[in-house]
Amino acid sequence: MDALKNKILNEGYALSSEVVKVDSFLNHQIDPIFMMEIGKEFHRLFIDDKIDKILTIEASGIAIGSFVAYQFKKPLVFAKKTKSRNLDKETYCSKVFSFTKQITSDIQVSKKYINKGENVLIVDDFLANGKALNGLIDIVEQAGANVAGIGIVIEKGFQPGGEEIRNKGYKLESLAIIKEMDKDHIVFED
Amino acid sequence: MDALKNKILNEGYALSSEVVKVDSFLNHQIDPIFMMEIGKEFHRLFIDDKIDKILTIEASGIAIGSFVAYQFKKPLVFAKKTKSRNLDKETYCSKVFSFTKQITSDIQVSKKYINKGENVLIVDDFLANGKALNGLIDIVEQAGANVAGIGIVIEKGFQPGGEEIRNKGYKLESLAIIKEMDKDHIVFED
Repeated sequence: MDALKNKILNEGYALSSEVVKVDSFLNHQIDPIFMMEIGKEFHRLFIDDKIDKILTIEASGIAIGSFVAYQFKKPLVFAKKTKSRNLDKETYCSKVFSFTKQITSDIQVSKKYINKGENVLIVDDFLANGKALNGLIDIVEQAGANVAGIGIVIEKGFQPGGEEIRNKGYKLESLAIIKEMDKDHIVFED
Repeated sequence: MDALKNKILNEGYALSSEVVKVDSFLNHQIDPIFMMEIGKEFHRLFIDDKIDKILTIEASGIAIGSFVAYQFKKPLVFAKKTKSRNLDKETYCSKVFSFTKQITSDIQVSKKYINKGENVLIVDDFLANGKALNGLIDIVEQAGANVAGIGIVIEKGFQPGGEEIRNKGYKLESLAIIKEMDKDHIVFED
């Protein structure tokens, strides 16, 4: 998605060879008009996959997921990272390690909100090592639902998550794949 | 907002005299078409307040905030509850106690994303004791910006947050105010 690559180059920057800052529009401040364009692009990419539900994980996946869900006119469900006394007792649960936060957490989805046989589109802002994504796939499959597609805004192509997921046969579409980066440059895959 | 009150009565339920479950459309599963209607309603209520920016707090405020921001065509910023090594060093910070999760946390917003003199509309899913909301107000005021309005989806009118905030002179609009509830009933204020 050229508009995304341009926005990353114009508004984002590489903090190091591993961390790209896009918090002006994607994961701290949100540009809602641009996010709706991202929603439309995922709708275009997965329109033939009979999507019943969108699944993401709190927190920064929720904005993207909201606009994707709006385009599909289907519900968004977001996995929760923290225990809340208000969450249902009956949940699907998976363990996820976050490199960004250096903690392992249980992610949970109430059993009420993913049903057997549903076609689920998983979306998230970033794909690097794929830990969060594998947790979401695990939850969909525990529910007996289908991972009908995976939509990622920015994939770090130099980290192993994307290749591992594609090798397992999932339909993974990333709107921008960073091949390499460092403090003065960001290079995308074609 | 009658459509919201009906949705709470039809899809939600009171778990006790203090906890109302609306996770089928508001804070775990999200109904994006309905959320866009909520966005339009807040836009109608605050259209004269020259809003420059929408501010909310992760996680369940992000979906509402996204649709409100889309209606205003202005950026959404969400305060972060957890430390991330990718967050800027320069942040506005406030301490917030969560009754739901029984923990005190620092909430933070990068100084880049709230500017002096901006008119900020704060939005959130719930208002009960007002702890999170007071943290967000504190952050806006630390930045020298104006709390131009506060939009809440569901206010628990029997808890003190709303009255305290209104008594301080803020323009607070709640789309549904629950006067009282218990396992078999939910009563709204008119």
